[in-house]
Amino acid sequence: MKGRFGILFFLAAFFVLPVIAQQKTSSYVLVIHGGAGTILKKNMTPEKEAAYKSSLKKALETGYRILQSGGSSLDAVEATVRVLEDDSLFNAGKGAVFTHEGRNELDAAIMNGKTKAAGAVAGVTTVRNPVSAARAVMEKSEHVMMVGPGAEKFAREAGLEIVDPSYFRTETRWQDLQRAIREDSLASAKSNAYTNPGKLGIKNRDYKFGTVGAVALDQQGNLAAATSTGGMTNKKYGRIGDSPIIGAGTYANNETAAISCTGWGEFYIRNVVAYDLSALMEYKGLSVQQAGNAVIKKVGDMGGDGGLIALDKKGNMTMSFNTEGMYRGAVTKDGKIQIEIYK
Amino acid sequence: MKGRFGILFFLAAFFVLPVIAQQKTSSYVLVIHGGAGTILKKNMTPEKEAAYKSSLKKALETGYRILQSGGSSLDAVEATVRVLEDDSLFNAGKGAVFTHEGRNELDAAIMNGKTKAAGAVAGVTTVRNPVSAARAVMEKSEHVMMVGPGAEKFAREAGLEIVDPSYFRTETRWQDLQRAIREDSLASAKSNAYTNPGKLGIKNRDYKFGTVGAVALDQQGNLAAATSTGGMTNKKYGRIGDSPIIGAGTYANNETAAISCTGWGEFYIRNVVAYDLSALMEYKGLSVQQAGNAVIKKVGDMGGDGGLIALDKKGNMTMSFNTEGMYRGAVTKDGKIQIEIYK
Repeated sequence: MKGRFGILFFLAAFFVLPVIAQQKTSSYVLVIHGGAGTILKKNMTPEKEAAYKSSLKKALETGYRILQSGGSSLDAVEATVRVLEDDSLFNAGKGAVFTHEGRNELDAAIMNGKTKAAGAVAGVTTVRNPVSAARAVMEKSEHVMMVGPGAEKFAREAGLEIVDPSYFRTETRWQDLQRAIREDSLASAKSNAYTNPGKLGIKNRDYKFGTVGAVALDQQGNLAAATSTGGMTNKKYGRIGDSPIIGAGTYANNETAAISCTGWGEFYIRNVVAYDLSALMEYKGLSVQQAGNAVIKKVGDMGGDGGLIALDKKGNMTMSFNTEGMYRGAVTKDGKIQIEIYK
Repeated sequence: MKGRFGILFFLAAFFVLPVIAQQKTSSYVLVIHGGAGTILKKNMTPEKEAAYKSSLKKALETGYRILQSGGSSLDAVEATVRVLEDDSLFNAGKGAVFTHEGRNELDAAIMNGKTKAAGAVAGVTTVRNPVSAARAVMEKSEHVMMVGPGAEKFAREAGLEIVDPSYFRTETRWQDLQRAIREDSLASAKSNAYTNPGKLGIKNRDYKFGTVGAVALDQQGNLAAATSTGGMTNKKYGRIGDSPIIGAGTYANNETAAISCTGWGEFYIRNVVAYDLSALMEYKGLSVQQAGNAVIKKVGDMGGDGGLIALDKKGNMTMSFNTEGMYRGAVTKDGKIQIEIYK
């Protein structure tokens, strides 16, 4: 009998201990952003600052609980972004900015770093949580990207919550649109054409942009990324920014990083920012921090601005931006919550 | 007087000769594709083959004349793609495939390798030449991508030719839709959900896809790329493929290459194929041929198929594909026209 126990102990040591060891070294991390721009402490009231921090904390706690209990990074980023979409402080879901025509047109994307499966929707006006529509496109269709009424029809058929377009409306954003219409028409009186590449005619863009996003690493070592936005205040002509474009605003690959961007979308599309960060890690051996800084520098060199969050498979993260501030936060490997707004 | 002539000769040698020298060493190249798929010689009639070759030749001659007379690569790729859009043999512009609802929804993109400016439209139904709408977005708006009715409104205001949606209809494509509706509904009866990443449920895709594209190098050493497509037969829900997505189906950068892709769009989006080719050249030092083969291998490894054309600043080109055939052609540095269809 002693011999058999010996064998059992041997087998246990062989099969069980490595699993325990793996669990001990595994780390789960969640990083979020709520948009980048000219966010200056002098312009912020203590109440407003507290409200933003409280919202970011709530989102982080929601996603972290999922990771802590062994849930997937995909579930974590979706749940986290849903909290930010439901929060009217951020330009995504409820509280999204208005188009020129006075509508809220929402874009979102999600990507699974393990399988490189991806889903995205753009220009939806009735789906309460666009990030969940993006996930449905990824998991329940043969496609990656759907836009407009077709995407809404799909979301409805996939059983997602549909709301009246008025659900997304907030008075603050409506006033932003009125201001943008006044200022843009003054600006366009001077120059209506895009003639000088890199010098686009978007004026006073600080209150126009805004995005939310989350990247996560789960206990299984899988990465995921999600991004959601209302786009740009006073946007016209069915404009789509970088958020729903895989490779531009959103990307995830277990071998490199999960990335979610925020900022002046046109520059992020032209620089294929999210995938460029991954490529710099894969092909040049840069760390996630080095790659994050490099791609933000490229955006800046071209005349654009914004930021991003990125997380690698070891739980190393970066929150790079070249604006005055970026709403951002993380739950790090040791379970500590970090929330920051300014540079 | 002799002295003054001497000075003039000196000045002429200084200013004029370098220009001549530059013209002598500069090379201009144009490469096009008309879609990749199961194109087998045994299924092709001599008449059909001749028609395809004649159409490809006409497109090549149109773009090459522009390059030859010192025009820009941007003008060349736009003019070349317009010829292919106007030709009902290819799935772009007239002759585009039908959506599930029996509409022709067109996507296109263009990118300037010198400035990395880019423009794209998706889901337009009334613009005769979507590639020109993409160029208008690039040059006359502050945006990169516009979709749906907004993009059509913009194209109209930009003065582009607007046609009745029936202009795009061909009987062949209509029959393809009827066949796809029958076959897809049989397929979806078995499996309607995307459950196994990498194994999408698209059946009989050979007659469903198709794209046209052009890449060019002009006498000034500038690269440009353009792509145009009707997307996928029987597509639903406002699906968008890779063609209008900068970095996925279309990309250009003077430092690396101009790229236009064709194939199973979902895999091209997930692999960010066009930009990946550029990144492999920039970060790993691969040649355009090596990079082209590497990215097509990645698409194949994931379960997708298709092809691409790419051209670097020295006029080196590749036409990589993993399908049975790809309609393709080039005018090489020595002015020779090459046209091929099969492997």
